[in-house]
Amino acid sequence: MASRPALRARLCDVTDQQALLATTATDVKAVIADKVAELIAAGNPAPTVGLVPTMGALHEGHGALFEQARTENDLVVASIFVNPLQFDQPEDFEHYPRTLEADLELVTTFGGGVVFAPSTQHMYPGYPDAPHIRVSAGEMGSMFEGASRPGHFDGVCTVVAKLWNILMPPAPAVFRSYFGQKDAQQLAIVTRMAHDLNIDVDIRPVALVRAPSGLALSSRNVRLDDHGMEKALGLSQALHYLADQATRGELLDLSAARDIIRSQENVELDYLEIVDPTTLQPLTPEQLQAPLEREALALVAAWVPPVRLIDNMLLAP
Amino acid sequence: MASRPALRARLCDVTDQQALLATTATDVKAVIADKVAELIAAGNPAPTVGLVPTMGALHEGHGALFEQARTENDLVVASIFVNPLQFDQPEDFEHYPRTLEADLELVTTFGGGVVFAPSTQHMYPGYPDAPHIRVSAGEMGSMFEGASRPGHFDGVCTVVAKLWNILMPPAPAVFRSYFGQKDAQQLAIVTRMAHDLNIDVDIRPVALVRAPSGLALSSRNVRLDDHGMEKALGLSQALHYLADQATRGELLDLSAARDIIRSQENVELDYLEIVDPTTLQPLTPEQLQAPLEREALALVAAWVPPVRLIDNMLLAP
Repeated sequence: MASRPALRARLCDVTDQQALLATTATDVKAVIADKVAELIAAGNPAPTVGLVPTMGALHEGHGALFEQARTENDLVVASIFVNPLQFDQPEDFEHYPRTLEADLELVTTFGGGVVFAPSTQHMYPGYPDAPHIRVSAGEMGSMFEGASRPGHFDGVCTVVAKLWNILMPPAPAVFRSYFGQKDAQQLAIVTRMAHDLNIDVDIRPVALVRAPSGLALSSRNVRLDDHGMEKALGLSQALHYLADQATRGELLDLSAARDIIRSQENVELDYLEIVDPTTLQPLTPEQLQAPLEREALALVAAWVPPVRLIDNMLLAP
Repeated sequence: MASRPALRARLCDVTDQQALLATTATDVKAVIADKVAELIAAGNPAPTVGLVPTMGALHEGHGALFEQARTENDLVVASIFVNPLQFDQPEDFEHYPRTLEADLELVTTFGGGVVFAPSTQHMYPGYPDAPHIRVSAGEMGSMFEGASRPGHFDGVCTVVAKLWNILMPPAPAVFRSYFGQKDAQQLAIVTRMAHDLNIDVDIRPVALVRAPSGLALSSRNVRLDDHGMEKALGLSQALHYLADQATRGELLDLSAARDIIRSQENVELDYLEIVDPTTLQPLTPEQLQAPLEREALALVAAWVPPVRLIDNMLLAP
C-alpha cells in the first residue's frame, strides 16, 4: 500500500483513464463538484452521480455493482473504507485485507471516476473514543444477521450516512447509491435510513447473481467441496419453492420450505423467515394463513460446513 | 388552529410581510430553493440561510434566536414541530401547546421568511411504529439532563437531523442552525452530531440571557416567588465563582461551588459538574488538581421549589 502523500499526489496526475483518488472529505467534495460542473458545462443539466460504497479488497464480484452504476450514471464514485464500527471482532477488522493499489486499478477498469479512500482517523477523529453520535438501526438491525453481530448494522448505518453526507453531489446533480440484493437486510436497512432520516439519495438495488445450479454467488462458495455445493442448493430450492407458491397464489408452506434445507445432512438452518421487505418484520402465522397480498421477502441463513451461507428472494403474489 | 388546507393556501398568498408556510418537505424545499435563486439573481453569490428549530408556542424568549439568525443571514427559516420522540411522557406531548396561528405572526414579527410546520405523520410516517432508523446521542445523551429523560436526546438528534436534511438549502447557499446556550447539553450534542455525521451545517450558539440579578432567563422563573428568586441566585453565583477562579488561573473548587447552592434552604442540587464542552465528559478529580488548560463548561441543575432550574457557564483559563 502506497503512503498517503504518494496517493494524494494522484489528484494532480489526472488522465481520462485513471480514477481520481481523494483521501479527505474536503478534497473529494471538490473533485465531485468539479466533475459535476464539467458535465453541466458540457450541456448535461442534471448530471447523475452513482456511489458504490465498498470496504476495498475488490474482486470480480464487485463488477455487477459498478456495471449497473456505470450504466445508470454520468459519474461513478467508489468509496473504499474498512469501517471499524461494523466489525464485532477487533481482530477481524485488523486482518481485513487492504489492497488499495489493486483496488484503484480495478475501480478504473470497472469505469469508476472518483475514489474516496479516507483513513480511520479522518472518518472518526478520536476513534475509538469517537464517534459519540451514531445512527442506530434499531430492531431492524438486531434481527437475522444482526442477532449474531451486535452493533454491526448500527456501524453500517453510521458509516453509510457519513459517506452519503460527504459524497452527495451539489444540486442539480442527482445522487444514487448502490447495494447488492445479496445482503438483503443491509439493503432494507439503508433504504429505510434514507427514508427515515430524509436523506436525498436514491437507493439502487443490484440483483443477486446465481450460478446455473441456483446457488447464490458468494466469495465463500470456494470453500465448499462438491458435496457442500450440492447441500447448499437446499437454500435456493427452499426459496424457489416459496416463490412458486406465492406466484400461484397458494398458501406459503414455511415448514416444508425449512424441511428442504434441514433434510440435507450436516446442514444447520439458522433461519428461514418471510418478512415485510421495508421493515423486516416477520409475517405472523395468521398472515401466512392467507395467500400473500403484497410483495414479501424470504430470508435464509444456514451453516453448510465449513461456511455459513445467506440467500433471499422476493415473493410476488 | 386553522385546518391544514387553509394553511397550505398561504403558500399562494405571498406578501413581503408574511412568512411563507409550508407543511411538507417537498413544498418547503421548493420555497427555500426559490428564495435562494432570487437572492442569487439579485447579485448575492452565496446566500446564507439560518434555521431556528422550534416546537412552536413561541414567545418573546425566542426573540434572541431569531434576532441573531436575522442579523447573520439573508433568509431565516423557522421549523415548528412538536417532536413526539423527545418527550418521555406521552401526556406531556399531548398537552404541549399548539398555537400555529400565533406562532406564524410572531415568526413574521421576528423577521422569519419561511415556516416549516409538518404534521407528525409527515415527519414520521407510520408513527408510533416508525421511525425504525434513528440517531443515537450515546453517552452524551444519557448524562445530566438525559439521566432523568431516557431517549430525550436521541429524539432531539433524530428530529434535528431530519430537519437539517429537509431544510438544507441547495449549493452555493450556506446553511446555519441556531441553538440557545441555555440548553448547553443540547447545543453540545447537536454540534457533535453535525461533526460526527459530516452534516454540512454551521451551528450557531445564541448566548444565554441573564437578569440583572444574574438569574438565567427561563419561562419557569415566573413560578418562583421572591424567596425562590433569591434562592435561585445560588446557581449563577456558583458558576461565577468557578468562572472567576478559572480566569485567575486558580484551582477550581467544585465542592465550594456546590456548597453555594446547597446552602440555600430547600434547594436540592441535582448536579454541578465541569465538563469538556465538546464531549460533555466530566473533568476528573486529577484534572481538577491543576489550573484549567483549555476552555471548560460548568453545568448545573437544581430544584428550587416548585421548579427545576438549569444553568451553565463557559470557564476560560
